[in-house]
Amino acid sequence: MTAPSSAAPGTTVRASVLHGIGDVRLERRAVPAPGPGEVLVEVTAVGVCGSDTHYYTHGRIGPFSVDAPLVLGHEAAGRIVAVGDGVAPDRVGSRVSIEPQRPCRRCDQCKTGRYNLCPEMEFFATPPIDGAFAERVVIADDFAYDVPDSVSDAAAALIEPLSVGVWACQKAGVGAGSRVLVTGAGPVGVITAQVARALGASEVHISDLSEERLRFALEHGATHTHRADASLDHLEVDAFIDASGAQSAIRAGIPAVRPAGVVVLVGLGADDVLLPMALLQNRELVLTGVFRYANTWPLAIGLVAEGRVDLDCLVTERHGLADAESALTAGERPGNMKALVLPQE
Amino acid sequence: MTAPSSAAPGTTVRASVLHGIGDVRLERRAVPAPGPGEVLVEVTAVGVCGSDTHYYTHGRIGPFSVDAPLVLGHEAAGRIVAVGDGVAPDRVGSRVSIEPQRPCRRCDQCKTGRYNLCPEMEFFATPPIDGAFAERVVIADDFAYDVPDSVSDAAAALIEPLSVGVWACQKAGVGAGSRVLVTGAGPVGVITAQVARALGASEVHISDLSEERLRFALEHGATHTHRADASLDHLEVDAFIDASGAQSAIRAGIPAVRPAGVVVLVGLGADDVLLPMALLQNRELVLTGVFRYANTWPLAIGLVAEGRVDLDCLVTERHGLADAESALTAGERPGNMKALVLPQE
Amino acid sequence: MTAPSSAAPGTTVRASVLHGIGDVRLERRAVPAPGPGEVLVEVTAVGVCGSDTHYYTHGRIGPFSVDAPLVLGHEAAGRIVAVGDGVAPDRVGSRVSIEPQRPCRRCDQCKTGRYNLCPEMEFFATPPIDGAFAERVVIADDFAYDVPDSVSDAAAALIEPLSVGVWACQKAGVGAGSRVLVTGAGPVGVITAQVARALGASEVHISDLSEERLRFALEHGATHTHRADASLDHLEVDAFIDASGAQSAIRAGIPAVRPAGVVVLVGLGADDVLLPMALLQNRELVLTGVFRYANTWPLAIGLVAEGRVDLDCLVTERHGLADAESALTAGERPGNMKALVLPQE
Amino acid sequence: MTAPSSAAPGTTVRASVLHGIGDVRLERRAVPAPGPGEVLVEVTAVGVCGSDTHYYTHGRIGPFSVDAPLVLGHEAAGRIVAVGDGVAPDRVGSRVSIEPQRPCRRCDQCKTGRYNLCPEMEFFATPPIDGAFAERVVIADDFAYDVPDSVSDAAAALIEPLSVGVWACQKAGVGAGSRVLVTGAGPVGVITAQVARALGASEVHISDLSEERLRFALEHGATHTHRADASLDHLEVDAFIDASGAQSAIRAGIPAVRPAGVVVLVGLGADDVLLPMALLQNRELVLTGVFRYANTWPLAIGLVAEGRVDLDCLVTERHGLADAESALTAGERPGNMKALVLPQE
Repeated sequence: MTAPSSAAPGTTVRASVLHGIGDVRLERRAVPAPGPGEVLVEVTAVGVCGSDTHYYTHGRIGPFSVDAPLVLGHEAAGRIVAVGDGVAPDRVGSRVSIEPQRPCRRCDQCKTGRYNLCPEMEFFATPPIDGAFAERVVIADDFAYDVPDSVSDAAAALIEPLSVGVWACQKAGVGAGSRVLVTGAGPVGVITAQVARALGASEVHISDLSEERLRFALEHGATHTHRADASLDHLEVDAFIDASGAQSAIRAGIPAVRPAGVVVLVGLGADDVLLPMALLQNRELVLTGVFRYANTWPLAIGLVAEGRVDLDCLVTERHGLADAESALTAGERPGNMKALVLPQE
Repeated sequence: MTAPSSAAPGTTVRASVLHGIGDVRLERRAVPAPGPGEVLVEVTAVGVCGSDTHYYTHGRIGPFSVDAPLVLGHEAAGRIVAVGDGVAPDRVGSRVSIEPQRPCRRCDQCKTGRYNLCPEMEFFATPPIDGAFAERVVIADDFAYDVPDSVSDAAAALIEPLSVGVWACQKAGVGAGSRVLVTGAGPVGVITAQVARALGASEVHISDLSEERLRFALEHGATHTHRADASLDHLEVDAFIDASGAQSAIRAGIPAVRPAGVVVLVGLGADDVLLPMALLQNRELVLTGVFRYANTWPLAIGLVAEGRVDLDCLVTERHGLADAESALTAGERPGNMKALVLPQE
Repeated sequence: MTAPSSAAPGTTVRASVLHGIGDVRLERRAVPAPGPGEVLVEVTAVGVCGSDTHYYTHGRIGPFSVDAPLVLGHEAAGRIVAVGDGVAPDRVGSRVSIEPQRPCRRCDQCKTGRYNLCPEMEFFATPPIDGAFAERVVIADDFAYDVPDSVSDAAAALIEPLSVGVWACQKAGVGAGSRVLVTGAGPVGVITAQVARALGASEVHISDLSEERLRFALEHGATHTHRADASLDHLEVDAFIDASGAQSAIRAGIPAVRPAGVVVLVGLGADDVLLPMALLQNRELVLTGVFRYANTWPLAIGLVAEGRVDLDCLVTERHGLADAESALTAGERPGNMKALVLPQE
Repeated sequence: MTAPSSAAPGTTVRASVLHGIGDVRLERRAVPAPGPGEVLVEVTAVGVCGSDTHYYTHGRIGPFSVDAPLVLGHEAAGRIVAVGDGVAPDRVGSRVSIEPQRPCRRCDQCKTGRYNLCPEMEFFATPPIDGAFAERVVIADDFAYDVPDSVSDAAAALIEPLSVGVWACQKAGVGAGSRVLVTGAGPVGVITAQVARALGASEVHISDLSEERLRFALEHGATHTHRADASLDHLEVDAFIDASGAQSAIRAGIPAVRPAGVVVLVGLGADDVLLPMALLQNRELVLTGVFRYANTWPLAIGLVAEGRVDLDCLVTERHGLADAESALTAGERPGNMKALVLPQE
């Protein structure tokens, strides 16, 4: 492990730790040490995801239960301050965006290129794996991606949700000339609309109940907006991406898809959803979901660096580590899109 | 139009015509004339499909209503007896299997190879297009496929349901080493199991409520059988093909699919189906349906000619044209798999 | 056939006819009549392709020999002035870009979506099929595509070479973030560079011997230029598209392709090419060629209409029908990119 | 590291070491120790590949030069006798087939599922990485695949060349009903023919100069044989796989491929090959090569275990470790197909 004195950490770092529903505490923890092939990152910005808030308010997501203190946060950026064995020492000092997952690299899913589906995955802020609401975190060398100076710390953190949008658009086959429908104009929906446009889509329809969000989306990727309670049957799109998780949105969107079109479900909602199956069969639609992402960081960083996707525009709040709780409850406040935690402030 | 005297038709042919629910009549109709690029086929065998029976008992399927007299039957084989302009005269005399659809050949779906999704499709026995319960029918030259002598008339007719199985297995990505689950051991399920095995699947699981059907399936393609009311959660398959249309079967099968596996819905059931969506998303399963088929006849005929799929074993009843009504109600009789109508008898 | 009096053609039209090497004559021919499913187009602009010039100077291309008088020109746009049976009468008056091929629609290639490979293809200006150096031509209704007013007649004609670039980029898998190399900065090379950029490529390298052409390419799609006689080994691209047909260019480009990258050969050159096969094997490169295009017009028109590809910038000369010979020899003049024939002038 | 006393190795093992051209010596070397995630395998059988013989006779292959003593052999099977940290102890005793490569698992190629193209690959018997002509070797746990008792030691070793055939057929898109041409009826050609047939190919043509090899191929996978010096132009196949490396064979095979068909080059030959490029372009053929394989072992083992591929039939000679030199020169003897080295004898 190479740790130049100028960046020498102390023996402890501060972290924001979830102890139970509504119980977040600022604590000191031992500085993590990068193992072989790993790097230590001084965290500069972390986005708050709906899943962070859900753990904070419900203590669990599906089968994942917060049974022991957990550090939240998985949308993270920072600066490499030390490296483990086998890592090039000159990585120290690099500004990086973190892909917050540790696949096993050995199972069939990993070896066929779908490491996001690795059954042994360790993912930031998913019990029992700690996340990035902390001054320093460790990640594998190859999951810490250099970002150019033109990408802000905030944007570097939000490469994570951008990757969700990239992955969704890739699964949806979005490309030049595509006509796309996105339901839900929250952060993921707006990001997905931006990605679709950046990939060359000629039409990007977006629906939401909030006029304010629709206006925002129209300025950032969408070409057409629709009230979520209006029928979308008159549309004909090649791909429909749900970013709402709402059954009503999914059911409203499917009839808008042309024969042999694709439906990608990004939003997490109820365990069970009533689908218009006869319609899906008659049109031979292809429906799938996204579970995180794989191999998306280089493209995602490129889209931001080239100015084709704007992530900074999404940030509506910034909080220090001591105030992480405010960040976790940002969703309750009107106009919120994306709150950040800045661990160094 | 070339019509050698030895095969010269009379001026009328017999046809079995559905006039309303439960009202089938044997009538004489004018001999159809093959137009440019078409052939006239003397029909030797027609399989009865569940959709035929459904029109007979309900008078409609979804949006398709029998508002005028309709000839049923779309699983048909025969012998070419005349050809229209532009068709090689030496096709007369050929034993053929009929692909019972007439796409427009001009729309985007047709020109991109998905002619089964052509919005202007004319399909046999789908209102208002007449089917093949008749002595002679007309079809496009290139939708009448030669069959070798090793393929019986019955098998030549059943190339149609075999094509459904081929199309489903192709969409499911079934190949050498695949582990496949089929739910429903009726004709389509058994055919699909046979196709899966012929395509190299190493495991072909099939489920049904009928022990008799499971035994039959085990002799014809399946490698493992399961009671339809038992859990399938312990399985891990690459592809799951539902041939039952039952929501319970679909819901039972999905948990058996490995991450990134494929679900193909062949069976037609309720318009809406409650899907385990979170599971589908977390595993990034790909779900789709089949709507008929495209470009499957050559492979399907080859599978039968090479002895890798056995269609004759499915035939449980044979009826003359005058007795088409008995064929349409065969499903009510225990042990029935596939009834045939033989228009020349 | 519907032909409103305002557009009523006379009984003959003028056409520029190739009678032999270097022998082009302006003649009058009978007005062609649109058959069922066809439209009659008053031709407004026709681009000159290298193949037109090759027929003019050599009398043949490969197996295709000009054994009878032939009308050249296959990059054509115009206005529909009459329609055949089965075509919507309101198409009369539409400004259209012509896809100059007539596939059989019945063979395996056509029915699987690769109609460009139809063995019975009739293609404009390929013996013995006449092309578009004429006042009026007939084409199938679905191969005459409406263009919006924002697309000029010249651009509508050049949708044809644009389609070559689109098809090449599609085969090369070009998309967002792709790094692309194009060898040859003639019309097809520049168009391909523009398409690659429009499809989201982050790097578009182009090489040529002409500094002038490289400068032009840099203004129209390319991000980096290279002298054709310089080594390209230091590059690493995802896709390499040759638009030169020169063995030296093909051999220079292949080492620049990353493992599992794609090589697409667009330019026509010698029948035989010496390929660095061991390199291609060791990297598992995928090499293919393009033969015209299929299903590219809608996307190509969209790229121009949205201003993402500029075709008008390519036009360096315009000639009337009587002066078609000058257009055919434009390639001899320095600075030439694309000459047009304007049959109505 | 777990090493039960019953299998306790001594401190040294015997190995056959290449010191230079034609200079192979039996030596004792330290027993290798399995690191974390690795297993120690007692080698039971090793096939001799043409590349082993080439190193023996020429001292190099392309850029890979035998500059230091090298253990040859990469087609290996054995029994696990010890495991490193993190490996399930109950793997000791397993009969395994070895996939003889160690990818980095971290680069883009590895993470996108193409680990065979990893630029940091360590491959058995490729300088400076030692191979398996030794009593014991170390390999990653997940690259040692259990084989059932029905698979012999010889067959377990030959899963490696079988994997080449599987990979080639997968790249060629071989499946049910495929028509395939294989040029070259040596071990890889015959294996490829068997795989093609096992994957459902309806026609498997094979060509060679040796009548004896053609007869053998006809008994093992091929359906038709052709003299290598005869024209193959009358054939029409969907896929052409060259297993000869000879330019003449490649040039003879390409004209036999249908439009949009695939050409896969397996055999290694000259660095440069003169290809019929115009033909390849006009038919839009897709040409690629194979470089080893990725993720093929499970399917390959299954094909042997199910009796669909016969590898034992290929073995023509067996030698002890002390006699490895005889195995390396087996290719000089008439009738040779595959020689084995049995390190435990």
